[in-house]
Amino acid sequence: MKVAILSPVAWRTPPVHYGPWEQMASNLAENLVKLGIDVTLFATGDSFTSGKLNSVILKGYETEKGQDAKVLECLHISNLIENADQFDIIHNHFDFLPLTYSKLIKTPIITTIHGFSSDKIIPVYQKYNDHTYYVSISNSDRSDKLKYLATVYNGLNTEEFTFNPSPKDQLLFFGRIHPDKGTAEAIAIAKKTNKKLIIAGIIQDEGYFEREIKPHLNEDVQFIGSAGPQKRNELMGESLALLHPINFNEPFGLSVAEAMMCGTPVIAFNRGSMPELIENNKNGFLVDNVEKAVDAIDKTSSIDRKKCSELAKNRFSAKTMASEYLKLYHQILNQ
Amino acid sequence: MKVAILSPVAWRTPPVHYGPWEQMASNLAENLVKLGIDVTLFATGDSFTSGKLNSVILKGYETEKGQDAKVLECLHISNLIENADQFDIIHNHFDFLPLTYSKLIKTPIITTIHGFSSDKIIPVYQKYNDHTYYVSISNSDRSDKLKYLATVYNGLNTEEFTFNPSPKDQLLFFGRIHPDKGTAEAIAIAKKTNKKLIIAGIIQDEGYFEREIKPHLNEDVQFIGSAGPQKRNELMGESLALLHPINFNEPFGLSVAEAMMCGTPVIAFNRGSMPELIENNKNGFLVDNVEKAVDAIDKTSSIDRKKCSELAKNRFSAKTMASEYLKLYHQILNQ
Repeated sequence: MKVAILSPVAWRTPPVHYGPWEQMASNLAENLVKLGIDVTLFATGDSFTSGKLNSVILKGYETEKGQDAKVLECLHISNLIENADQFDIIHNHFDFLPLTYSKLIKTPIITTIHGFSSDKIIPVYQKYNDHTYYVSISNSDRSDKLKYLATVYNGLNTEEFTFNPSPKDQLLFFGRIHPDKGTAEAIAIAKKTNKKLIIAGIIQDEGYFEREIKPHLNEDVQFIGSAGPQKRNELMGESLALLHPINFNEPFGLSVAEAMMCGTPVIAFNRGSMPELIENNKNGFLVDNVEKAVDAIDKTSSIDRKKCSELAKNRFSAKTMASEYLKLYHQILNQ
Repeated sequence: MKVAILSPVAWRTPPVHYGPWEQMASNLAENLVKLGIDVTLFATGDSFTSGKLNSVILKGYETEKGQDAKVLECLHISNLIENADQFDIIHNHFDFLPLTYSKLIKTPIITTIHGFSSDKIIPVYQKYNDHTYYVSISNSDRSDKLKYLATVYNGLNTEEFTFNPSPKDQLLFFGRIHPDKGTAEAIAIAKKTNKKLIIAGIIQDEGYFEREIKPHLNEDVQFIGSAGPQKRNELMGESLALLHPINFNEPFGLSVAEAMMCGTPVIAFNRGSMPELIENNKNGFLVDNVEKAVDAIDKTSSIDRKKCSELAKNRFSAKTMASEYLKLYHQILNQ
């Protein structure tokens, strides 16, 4: 089977630092290759793949500023679409624009909707409801107006996350410093339990950081900035629990899956995709407010960290993701 | 012959006020209909045409703010492209994005390049050099990297411009208040000739207006703001000359053609498309600086205003433009 993977061209695939859509396109491409699939990755010229790389764009528009994103996008997309007949299936990770070329080619297009930047983009997806195939990254992240083929969870490189059976007596907040992510709520939870809290992440909302976070920093509430893969693995493994008191309907929590892979249970506010990622008392706790989160901390000792890790590595691995998508490709091609 | 005209969806076609690309698409569509052509105009839903209107967008993204321009654009373009086989030819007035669909359909696409927003968009045009047909709006507005089928000048509705044989002893500046357009140079010219100057146009550069224009305003140098079609016709007709001392390579000067239609010669700095619009001593004067412009004012009495008007109405009418394009359509279809 010949598969074309269309990655975004904001960043390199895989990205050096940030770039979740490019990361997922890469994780999928590499694991499809391992499954024996003939994969061509359409991405920026500085990308890497063990499949074939096809690119007409040298560097991403976020990597090399000053480029015209619209120009790069349409050159990149048309380069694949004009060669569509070389592939059995096209897997689009590039949002809505490629859909508008889909009726002009014979090769079927499957699209992973990694997120809706706004409701304004839904009409484009809606137009191609009966002509292409949509995959959501969680059941919670679905629009009522769209028809979906399936949900496939994000798949991570499990080897980046080491199981740690003996955590320290500390809690972790891992993510953007932003009201959506509930950094302030995480501090409130930690204070009430008298446990140390490590906060790792980029500051996305400066005012929020200055107002709600900075005044609380001390030896027990430490902000360490952004953490790379190695530090992340270390921090996640040595935590008693990951605090994830989100204030928005998160489509998929990457850090939730990552912490669980290290054996660390997650205490999350019960919103968005959380009930799909967390099984109460098994790999974490779904709670409604700060008080319930505080109660849950006492129960973390009842969690079997080994099972928590195994479950996550099975459900949210790139290998699992690739197998699921491969099933969908067959389903589409046999229709 | 069935022709599809693809207009932008920033504004209505024709626009209520501003919107030169939409205006040209409308002028062309209406005059092709007069020539007996079966025209379908693809434009916003609030557009008007004596041909057929096809629209999937209710209102333009500049008319109704808050819409996602990219969403509107790709829905609009794909709506035409997916119905391409209903037309003998597609005439694109929508910049580069439609080109990237051109290899996927059989109907030929001819594109009028109304302007290059930046050099960054040229690679898209370049990619389709041998696959589609480009028309420049003046010989001066050509990129070395592109292949052109022809130059077709903008065509105006001549009935909006009345010949006036007896102008007042006053000069006119008509256009955006911006250093590119040379408003300050126009004032310098008028002052040296002791003639009254009327300045009409929107203020595009506030700082420039405050610094270079406002201090010179008095009874003899009057700024009247933006002028609608009726006022424009009046002002242009009653002027001795239009001053057009531009400081950039203007691709096409609409006000130059308009003034000439009223019988008013144009004194312009010799840049961009000016030598294509102005014939020295016949309908105006091409000069290099303020002093030469002052000299030229004395010679305006030698211009035959009637001939000046007739020449412009012949060369720059929408009817002429439509005939020229019709010849190009035949040329393409007979290849």
